[in-house]
Amino acid sequence: MRLKSYAIGKWVQGTGNFQNLYNPVNGEKVAEISSEGLDIKGMLEYAREEVGPKLRDKTFHARGRMLKKLAQHLMDRKKEFYPLSFQTGATKIDSWVDIEGGISTLFTYASKGRREIPDGKIWVEGNMERLSAEGTFVGQHVLVPLQGVAVHINAYNFPVWGMLEKFAPTFIAGMPAIIKPSPYSAFLAEKMVQAIVESEILPEGSLQLICGEPYDLLDHLTSQDVLTFTGSAETGKKLKSHPNIINNTVRFNMEADSINCSVLGEDITPEMDEFKYFVKEVANEMTTKAGQKCTAIRRTIVPQKIMNEVTEAIKERLARVKIGNPADAETRMGSLADKRYVELVNEKLELLKESLEVAYEGKEEFDENSAFVNPVLLKCDNPFETEIVHDIEAFGPVNSVMPYNSFADAIKIAKLGQGSLVASLYTLDNDAAKKFVFETGAYHGRINIINRYSAKESTGHGSPLPHMSHGGPGRAGGGEELGGIRGILKYMQRVALQGHPTNITKIGEQYLPGAEQTHDKVHPFRKYFEELEIGETLITHRRTVTESDVINFAGISGDYFYAHMDDIAAKESMFERRVAHGYFVLSAAAGLFVHPAPGPVMANYGLDNLRFIQPVYIGDTIYTKLTCKKKTYKEKREETDKPNGVVEWYVEVVNQEEDVVAVYTILTLVERKEDN
Amino acid sequence: MRLKSYAIGKWVQGTGNFQNLYNPVNGEKVAEISSEGLDIKGMLEYAREEVGPKLRDKTFHARGRMLKKLAQHLMDRKKEFYPLSFQTGATKIDSWVDIEGGISTLFTYASKGRREIPDGKIWVEGNMERLSAEGTFVGQHVLVPLQGVAVHINAYNFPVWGMLEKFAPTFIAGMPAIIKPSPYSAFLAEKMVQAIVESEILPEGSLQLICGEPYDLLDHLTSQDVLTFTGSAETGKKLKSHPNIINNTVRFNMEADSINCSVLGEDITPEMDEFKYFVKEVANEMTTKAGQKCTAIRRTIVPQKIMNEVTEAIKERLARVKIGNPADAETRMGSLADKRYVELVNEKLELLKESLEVAYEGKEEFDENSAFVNPVLLKCDNPFETEIVHDIEAFGPVNSVMPYNSFADAIKIAKLGQGSLVASLYTLDNDAAKKFVFETGAYHGRINIINRYSAKESTGHGSPLPHMSHGGPGRAGGGEELGGIRGILKYMQRVALQGHPTNITKIGEQYLPGAEQTHDKVHPFRKYFEELEIGETLITHRRTVTESDVINFAGISGDYFYAHMDDIAAKESMFERRVAHGYFVLSAAAGLFVHPAPGPVMANYGLDNLRFIQPVYIGDTIYTKLTCKKKTYKEKREETDKPNGVVEWYVEVVNQEEDVVAVYTILTLVERKEDN
Repeated sequence: MRLKSYAIGKWVQGTGNFQNLYNPVNGEKVAEISSEGLDIKGMLEYAREEVGPKLRDKTFHARGRMLKKLAQHLMDRKKEFYPLSFQTGATKIDSWVDIEGGISTLFTYASKGRREIPDGKIWVEGNMERLSAEGTFVGQHVLVPLQGVAVHINAYNFPVWGMLEKFAPTFIAGMPAIIKPSPYSAFLAEKMVQAIVESEILPEGSLQLICGEPYDLLDHLTSQDVLTFTGSAETGKKLKSHPNIINNTVRFNMEADSINCSVLGEDITPEMDEFKYFVKEVANEMTTKAGQKCTAIRRTIVPQKIMNEVTEAIKERLARVKIGNPADAETRMGSLADKRYVELVNEKLELLKESLEVAYEGKEEFDENSAFVNPVLLKCDNPFETEIVHDIEAFGPVNSVMPYNSFADAIKIAKLGQGSLVASLYTLDNDAAKKFVFETGAYHGRINIINRYSAKESTGHGSPLPHMSHGGPGRAGGGEELGGIRGILKYMQRVALQGHPTNITKIGEQYLPGAEQTHDKVHPFRKYFEELEIGETLITHRRTVTESDVINFAGISGDYFYAHMDDIAAKESMFERRVAHGYFVLSAAAGLFVHPAPGPVMANYGLDNLRFIQPVYIGDTIYTKLTCKKKTYKEKREETDKPNGVVEWYVEVVNQEEDVVAVYTILTLVERKEDN
Repeated sequence: MRLKSYAIGKWVQGTGNFQNLYNPVNGEKVAEISSEGLDIKGMLEYAREEVGPKLRDKTFHARGRMLKKLAQHLMDRKKEFYPLSFQTGATKIDSWVDIEGGISTLFTYASKGRREIPDGKIWVEGNMERLSAEGTFVGQHVLVPLQGVAVHINAYNFPVWGMLEKFAPTFIAGMPAIIKPSPYSAFLAEKMVQAIVESEILPEGSLQLICGEPYDLLDHLTSQDVLTFTGSAETGKKLKSHPNIINNTVRFNMEADSINCSVLGEDITPEMDEFKYFVKEVANEMTTKAGQKCTAIRRTIVPQKIMNEVTEAIKERLARVKIGNPADAETRMGSLADKRYVELVNEKLELLKESLEVAYEGKEEFDENSAFVNPVLLKCDNPFETEIVHDIEAFGPVNSVMPYNSFADAIKIAKLGQGSLVASLYTLDNDAAKKFVFETGAYHGRINIINRYSAKESTGHGSPLPHMSHGGPGRAGGGEELGGIRGILKYMQRVALQGHPTNITKIGEQYLPGAEQTHDKVHPFRKYFEELEIGETLITHRRTVTESDVINFAGISGDYFYAHMDDIAAKESMFERRVAHGYFVLSAAAGLFVHPAPGPVMANYGLDNLRFIQPVYIGDTIYTKLTCKKKTYKEKREETDKPNGVVEWYVEVVNQEEDVVAVYTILTLVERKEDN
């Protein structure tokens, strides 16, 4: 099997200089890999010139829908990927994390992209800023896709997840991607890209693949491109300081392995559930992916007084771990990804052993052609005097237990890691948890607080989730990925847009207060989704608020608050006399703008950002301005659903002095005309 | 006058190696500057070890209140800064932008820090993410201050604004700052730091100052520190690729000058207001600060057919600009900041003149000891064939006019700048504006859309505002500053916090759904602000919703929507039968939880994130859970105000099946006990 690259719409084989790839389980040759002769500059230009414009021409939601379809397609084919995954040394569970975890990242971005980003080609972000006294000059941040290509250089440990977790936000943003997997698991990445290409769901060129060396790739990147890297800090720093990356201000994001820690709280004793969950997690984190995980626990920080109990309990668990052929169902720990990593792990392990005691070391013997290693638990009695334990990482099933005397010391030890992807703390003590987050948060991209109430549903110390940020400061590379829609921003330019609200309304397709309003004789509730225009405004008839209204409203609501009902107390209050109920104002406003007959408006399902700006007093006369603010197309959930979309309406309730007494936004479901 | 540095609580003078600073207006010596012998490593350590913990121990709002007090203090002393500012060559208007613009940045951050960030030491950011089926394991992003020091290396052109716009977000974040101004206007920066120190408003050490060389500063930065730079791209790239910055993953932000453009729309003709506003702005941008502004317009892109009219109109304006002593009221353009910049500007100008025609060049002669220069307007007839005009920037009163044939070409020309801080477009055509933002947004950190409706209140092409992002891609350095609270994030670590909602509620001091609720016999509306606890929950009595309720509510609200009133239409609707009004549910819920007698709850002034989850039908029985979600201390606006705070309540309305039918958050003002 000779791996191919996918470039400019074709599968291309290298012309020579092949590297052999071996199955780490038995040492048999699996594939050859080379990208010699590949037109890398051409791939970049194709992505920028042909693909980018096509992608940007879709809305965020349209891209989200494609991503969802792709995720469903890949999930249907998931079984095809497992056999190749076993050939990377990954067990069934390891493979599930990589394959199905990767595909589920697509689902998450497909969903978040549609729920949390406006349905347009320009992303209106955050609130309008009023920059002038009269309001004719305002500011609004918007985001637009970068016009280059995102180059993703991935690590060998998660060939599918690592690719898809970077691709999903890139695609939602509207940027084409070029992926360069590590050679050591590239056959699985290649298989996944094949499946994606075959599906024909994404626009051609959305994703290209380099199987082999990147050659002069970095020399051709521009300031509209993005370079991301997951792997060793050493390689990452080389990329980051590459002259062209510096000179062309190429956006760069790095995620490096780090010396993550897990801390057992001072309050936990061996009889407690938290102790058991902690021990289980530490052992799991050592053996999952044979410890080749940038988020794995490397330092286990425990109270001095139960250091021995913890160590013994972990040893017991490790002794029961079944190491072997990853394809076997009962195997709990597979091999490293390649024989070369055995040497690298052993080299680091030898260094660690110079300063640390071995608490446990598996004794199993393995075929010399395989890449299996035994788990090793080390003990470090003086973490403050043993620099190496916070500095050197054996990227395999290796972990060091170390004691602390006070929780303040535990915090100091955690910080000695100089920046990590993740830390976890097992405790029932909420004050300790708060202190830990406040004191060590600056050193960690993620912190898990675990106890008996959360442990069962916890997704684990080592699992980055697409909803949550992934990355860490300092040694972990200083990058940030995922984090829901935050991850998409990496591939976009934020623009501080300034101008008249009317201009910005037209650009962002979202009504801003102060923008021009249009009027029509047809009531907006009589219009279908497609017929409504942003800025279209209904100005209602008026209504005088009477004492009877207040009394009757108190009666029906049961709200007899003194400010509405008690002349004496109301006089002494901030209102100075009786006021109408806020919810009465809201209800009366609806009475003014709602059209009662059946029509396209199906339901009012929510309300946002209501502020009562001025009290409404008995005798005041109010009316309502209802403005079409924003429209979002919705897919049918079920075939029988009426086609519809969400229409947001900006509402102002105004009194006889033309003062606004209340503002808010209501959310309605409005029928689409298309099928009628 | 020998400038001093402010280090570790003392004003320190350099020990030798002094650089002379001259008044650019008359060439007289103004001051000497040197930081020789300064304990720079000690300053960093002092900031990290002594100052950081003190700052982090305050809440965001407490820091905001200090910043507001400082801003008021500096504004009261503003007159002291103008005479020194004139000695940098800045006119009165230039000085106003620098001095009062700088101080107003403090006001903006003081205000935004309190309005848009929670009142605590840990910033709870964005929404909770439900990560598990049962909801016992959830995610919440939080932000904590970095534990290092922020080093700000500033440019000479805005010694006050440049310092304060970086300091304000740093201080709100809770990080100490060390500021290194450019020597050429350091006497003004020194004066401002003196005023800040003398005020004794900020904790000692919040801000230190290096007047002179930074020496080995960069060698001592760690991954908990931040380095920001404003100035030339060349210097910026050196800092960015400094081995210690790379190796220690020091956060870096750069803002470099760029070849910004202003575009006159295809729809604009010389008779139109937009033409006049455009010409005025281009001329202003050339002469303000004598063109020494990283945001100044360098490329003026106009329709070919009126290229001559535009050029003539700009020339006319330039000819009227009074150049001279900046202290004189009628002066419209002062000098460059130092004589050395005259040479630098002329050097670049000569290069430009090799390819471009001179349309206008002032003929005034100046004292050879001064740093005055004449404004120069260049003409570039073939912008597509003249690379240099998009590449070389004379950082002075120099601008090039260039024509376009179609708006698509105008867009291409704008992008030839390879990334800018800002672009502006003068047009009445909203479609063109939208196209411009969509097509060139990826190349610009800010875009101003200007026409007759916005021009009068526009803050101008060249003015970064604290509310809006400042920075640009590519040539502009790829950084981002300001942008309201976005700018604060640069000094904080985002932590993906995962655990049980109860843990995260305690850590973030903000109730998350699913967290433990506590109960008390005292109604929460009977409690003062201080007495309320996060998570404290009132479970109300119940109420059966009757047909009379629906009918009466329709009568009082005037809302006769068919889903409530029309049996036949309701049956055919998505509800399948008549439902109660959503606003009735909201009103009845208030009737259930409101305590009617006068008490600490002063008003309900708003409501957020209301979602009607299930319909309420006639015959349903509902009750309400009211949970104290979040508390925010408020300062009195006026002495006579009752002391109070904002309490947010999370509300769930639940039916007889224990299904939640509506969720929302209400905002109340609750009296503080302290003064009672």
